[in-house]
Amino acid sequence: MDNFQGDKAKVRAILDAVKKAGRDSLTAPEGKLVCEAYGIAVPKEGVVNSAAEASKLAGSMGFPVVMKIVSPDILHKTEAGGVIVGVKNADDAASAYETILANAKKYKADAQIVGIQVQQMIRGGTEVIVGAITDDSFGKLVAFGLGGVLVEVLKDVTFRLAPATTQDAESMLDGIQAAEMLRGVRGGDAVNREALTSTIVRVSQLVSDFPEIAEMDLNPVFASKDSAIAADVRIVVNFSPKPARFRPEEKDVVASMNRIMKPKAVAVVGASNEAGKIGNSVMKNLINGGYQGKIYPINPKDAEVMGIKAYKSVKDVPDEIDTAVFAVPAKFVASALKECGEKKIAGAILIPSGFGETGNIEGQEELQRIGREYNIRLMGPNIYGFYYTPANLCATFCTAYDVKGSTALSSQSGGIGMAIIGFSRSAKMGVSAIVGLGNKSDIDEDDLLLFFEQDDNTKVIAQHCEDLKDGRAFAEVAKRVSKKKPVIMLKAGRTAAGAAAASSHTGALAGNDKIYEDVLRQSGVIRARSLRQMLELSRGVPILPTPKGENIVIITGAGGSGVLLSDACVDNGLKLLKPMPDDLDAAFRKFIPPFGAACNPVDITGGEPPITYVNTVRLGLEDDRIHALILGYWHTIVTPPMVFARNMVQIVNEMKAKGKIKPVVASLAGDVEVEEAAQYLYENGIPAYAYSTELPVEVLGAKYQWARAAGLL
Amino acid sequence: MDNFQGDKAKVRAILDAVKKAGRDSLTAPEGKLVCEAYGIAVPKEGVVNSAAEASKLAGSMGFPVVMKIVSPDILHKTEAGGVIVGVKNADDAASAYETILANAKKYKADAQIVGIQVQQMIRGGTEVIVGAITDDSFGKLVAFGLGGVLVEVLKDVTFRLAPATTQDAESMLDGIQAAEMLRGVRGGDAVNREALTSTIVRVSQLVSDFPEIAEMDLNPVFASKDSAIAADVRIVVNFSPKPARFRPEEKDVVASMNRIMKPKAVAVVGASNEAGKIGNSVMKNLINGGYQGKIYPINPKDAEVMGIKAYKSVKDVPDEIDTAVFAVPAKFVASALKECGEKKIAGAILIPSGFGETGNIEGQEELQRIGREYNIRLMGPNIYGFYYTPANLCATFCTAYDVKGSTALSSQSGGIGMAIIGFSRSAKMGVSAIVGLGNKSDIDEDDLLLFFEQDDNTKVIAQHCEDLKDGRAFAEVAKRVSKKKPVIMLKAGRTAAGAAAASSHTGALAGNDKIYEDVLRQSGVIRARSLRQMLELSRGVPILPTPKGENIVIITGAGGSGVLLSDACVDNGLKLLKPMPDDLDAAFRKFIPPFGAACNPVDITGGEPPITYVNTVRLGLEDDRIHALILGYWHTIVTPPMVFARNMVQIVNEMKAKGKIKPVVASLAGDVEVEEAAQYLYENGIPAYAYSTELPVEVLGAKYQWARAAGLL
Repeated sequence: MDNFQGDKAKVRAILDAVKKAGRDSLTAPEGKLVCEAYGIAVPKEGVVNSAAEASKLAGSMGFPVVMKIVSPDILHKTEAGGVIVGVKNADDAASAYETILANAKKYKADAQIVGIQVQQMIRGGTEVIVGAITDDSFGKLVAFGLGGVLVEVLKDVTFRLAPATTQDAESMLDGIQAAEMLRGVRGGDAVNREALTSTIVRVSQLVSDFPEIAEMDLNPVFASKDSAIAADVRIVVNFSPKPARFRPEEKDVVASMNRIMKPKAVAVVGASNEAGKIGNSVMKNLINGGYQGKIYPINPKDAEVMGIKAYKSVKDVPDEIDTAVFAVPAKFVASALKECGEKKIAGAILIPSGFGETGNIEGQEELQRIGREYNIRLMGPNIYGFYYTPANLCATFCTAYDVKGSTALSSQSGGIGMAIIGFSRSAKMGVSAIVGLGNKSDIDEDDLLLFFEQDDNTKVIAQHCEDLKDGRAFAEVAKRVSKKKPVIMLKAGRTAAGAAAASSHTGALAGNDKIYEDVLRQSGVIRARSLRQMLELSRGVPILPTPKGENIVIITGAGGSGVLLSDACVDNGLKLLKPMPDDLDAAFRKFIPPFGAACNPVDITGGEPPITYVNTVRLGLEDDRIHALILGYWHTIVTPPMVFARNMVQIVNEMKAKGKIKPVVASLAGDVEVEEAAQYLYENGIPAYAYSTELPVEVLGAKYQWARAAGLL
Repeated sequence: MDNFQGDKAKVRAILDAVKKAGRDSLTAPEGKLVCEAYGIAVPKEGVVNSAAEASKLAGSMGFPVVMKIVSPDILHKTEAGGVIVGVKNADDAASAYETILANAKKYKADAQIVGIQVQQMIRGGTEVIVGAITDDSFGKLVAFGLGGVLVEVLKDVTFRLAPATTQDAESMLDGIQAAEMLRGVRGGDAVNREALTSTIVRVSQLVSDFPEIAEMDLNPVFASKDSAIAADVRIVVNFSPKPARFRPEEKDVVASMNRIMKPKAVAVVGASNEAGKIGNSVMKNLINGGYQGKIYPINPKDAEVMGIKAYKSVKDVPDEIDTAVFAVPAKFVASALKECGEKKIAGAILIPSGFGETGNIEGQEELQRIGREYNIRLMGPNIYGFYYTPANLCATFCTAYDVKGSTALSSQSGGIGMAIIGFSRSAKMGVSAIVGLGNKSDIDEDDLLLFFEQDDNTKVIAQHCEDLKDGRAFAEVAKRVSKKKPVIMLKAGRTAAGAAAASSHTGALAGNDKIYEDVLRQSGVIRARSLRQMLELSRGVPILPTPKGENIVIITGAGGSGVLLSDACVDNGLKLLKPMPDDLDAAFRKFIPPFGAACNPVDITGGEPPITYVNTVRLGLEDDRIHALILGYWHTIVTPPMVFARNMVQIVNEMKAKGKIKPVVASLAGDVEVEEAAQYLYENGIPAYAYSTELPVEVLGAKYQWARAAGLL
């Protein structure tokens, strides 16, 4: 059903007529014709002029049918005896024809009779809604939900980007809360999934083919075991849609972003010798951070800045410059940017504030115009700059950061950027990049995705954002990138109250959160539910190997942790290997006391020595029916925290050498020494958490979510 | 409607008849009579023997009615023309009577005619379910939900302990997901709330008055704008219910618990000089912990233990002993316990394992029998013991703990107990007590609640449990205690997978989690969702003053934090003061840059000096329309973390001195120095969190949840 081809000419003709008539919606018959042109089932109908014709037509559409007089002279059809419902077979159709005709003549002898309408009767099945809307950020979206008041109250509707594939449509049927209704409950029939997904796919293709269809509602659609038929069609059109946002070619984005993020030469516009100035902090960070490329301070007065020869303008620099970091007041930005453009610099890092966020929309639009004119990409304005650790590059006025690793983070807000830096340093999380996006006048999340996609130093991408200026572009890129590297997003302004704050903060129009939720999922993006969760996932996910299957085993020294870890598995959509196969059960039992439990959680009981942890974990890593391990450690004198940690790292490495590579996470219950053990485990490839049973499982859950979405499981 | 009095004699007579007949359920007519005895509306009905009677009876019950032949000789009433539905008025009732009679005679001339049944026809309104069940832990529970298949799929049902008050019943109507349906949607009528809550209250009273009613279903109940009428009644009885669990008098519990937790003298049964033995660790902890009461080591061989005179048996000790800590193998416990009983010791702390948790149920039951016989309370077995810091008492073999404070924690699991100790020490959380409950052979969560209720050293009670042996007793006590002190519970085994692990761990029958959820809420208990959350709430909640109203203001230096804090407010059921009153808006604006925002979040913008934080926070504390503050700090050179922290503590204390006492929490975004600032703020009464926007709001949310449930808001 993918790439479904509708009869575009037929739809075009109808829409042209509507446009010509100056209308902004279609009539019901027009809506039906549009549906028919795209093979969307609507009740069959036709007008006949003989009893034989009536039998034939009714037979062709399937019984029962409704038959109605068609006459300009008879307005009250029922009163005239001109309607017969529930006509069950061909003979009845023939006699109904005669009856209606006779009744009509009796009612009004001189009535002009056009014919008798035969219409398929739609009954039974489940009432559902299929629709489409146009979102400011995501463009065309197809929607699906159950019909009825209760569903309206529960807001049980799901969205996907249009056009949707059959797989997308399937996921919509499974994605509503009341999904079970479609599978048939209390002896009711299951709906015809193929008919329903086909309707969704065709609606999504229709609105994609015709951008002027702003909204569409098939409500209700009767979904039965045989068919899905739209009983009512409503189509709203908008012949002057907003112009598409400019998007450079992907290869151009990648080329520019590579020059910006991995520059051979950086200019600091507004470099300063005066401590406390931003232009001084940036220079310090570049030099002290260990950046090995060329640094060109730009300063109208000083001959050198921090011992490096300075220039009055970037245009005076004899060599090529890739990146210009701006540290001048807002009013000087535009002219300096123009010079950067003339110098063919790839990107401007616009630290200065005083643009969109303070109401200076015009000033920001001026920068955008210059950027487009000179083909120079803009980061910001109103940002802290960025870090790219593989190049020892701290192009920012914030404190330096140098713990190298494989997570690339970005934030729309400066405060959140600072929290990223603080957490990363404190938790010893290695990062490849930290980028501030601020007002997002140009470079945004999808530009970063394109760069990090091909950046071998980055394994996981985590982004904080309050809005997506172009959700459609993001989703399209994310869908591809997330198949290669986990993409984690903290979307702020999730809730009504949150969204209000977003709009007072950036003037951004906060999207409907349900749409974000569904589209991010459709794009394979892992959505973080809180700042700390984004940070914890950023830290834990990249060091975990990809699981090869869904069967998880919990091995715990603390039964109480086992219960909480099991709870967390359910919360995070993880599946425990259950029932434990008999031979595996017996194998585990060999290592644990008789009153322990091997039924998953494997409860090795509290007082066991290190060898019991080692033996059971080895078994868990060895057996190919087990795909991931969650460890619950209980601090005892017999097995102190660091002894446990060293033993676990050793056995995991030993098995790794034998090709048994599986994700292992750990929850450590004990006195403060477990903190050191947790850090040691993390640094050796085992995400481990003190005093928490939920964090290790959240991290493992995110890895699974990613692996499933990327089609690796 | 509280303490509703039904006609007990009538119900008793029916139940006696059912019991005599050896049946385990009531017939439909019996069920209706039981309902009528308790004033639960069922369709009115009666049998008449004349057309005049039919008119009169039908008129008294309200039209429409259904009329049916009543004859032992006519089984197929409809076939016999013996049923007429939708009888609309008195005349129609009279003629329906004649018609039915005539039809019946025509159908079977010699049929014995008992009369004609007239029954109220129930139509329209919303179909709901009211029911009752008997839970092993909670006893009688009343249930409420919408009727219909969709609701069944969504499992949208809510429970309360029976008997339920009208207020409980109201909360049930509001407590289902689809609550809006009851308020009337899409122009539909709202249900008659009084009729519906009255039905719930009466059902709950009925099952409480008659414990032999094991299950009851009113399904459906037609809830309309006028009435709530149970169309179908099903009652299942059980005449041999399980015997009630023994519960000592509350005053006896409190007396014993006070002796146990604040003993004048402690015996250590199995005290040892040998390092590494549990009896040695316990002695060390008692002595080194600084316990000032008397310590009596009990050891069959040694004359003294760790320099203190030892005795062969507790019976040899010349003075009174309050608490005996057991550190002997399982097989020696029973005989030593008997001696403790004879010595009139108040409680035995049964550290030894090897009882219920290893399948030795009999051994555990023996201890229970001895405990009951000698009136000695048992903690455990299979525990780490307990800490009570106000008495410097470490009656445990674990590491000592001495950070005094006002949170009392307990855990069912030893591992979780260790996590509590580690987290508390690491986060410098002051605790009054940490108690291990293990197998809960006797002392359980409600005994602890009774002690902590009257313990002036305890302000907040936090409990980890996997099951409640007597949920009814817990709920009853918690309902009262939670009005005085916040009670936080981490109920493990929440999910299907978790519950399975619970039952393999303790043999406990895991309750239905939805029941726990609803009953804990009904009892005013704050439910923690994860181990870390229980710990964070335990740490933060006690230091917050109780808010005096619902209006919260966010003051933030980082707009990005403001958005995330707003999200968290919605997630935690907190209400931002909106719209900000004009004068207050103007007052805030006076202190912040023109491009800042005062519309809540108050965005003071990023580069502001400490005085801006101070001025806005002072205003927030001063103005009586604001009841709580959430601060978002952004680390800058202008306002470094500790400068911010000191300023905030100063202004909060200054306002406190003026009687302006409000809860203030803070989220700190910045580099690692914010960790020190967060700790300083916490130690000075402001729960503050680095790199997290959700934790401060969760803590504030828990305080609000408690204050509301306790009727303080």
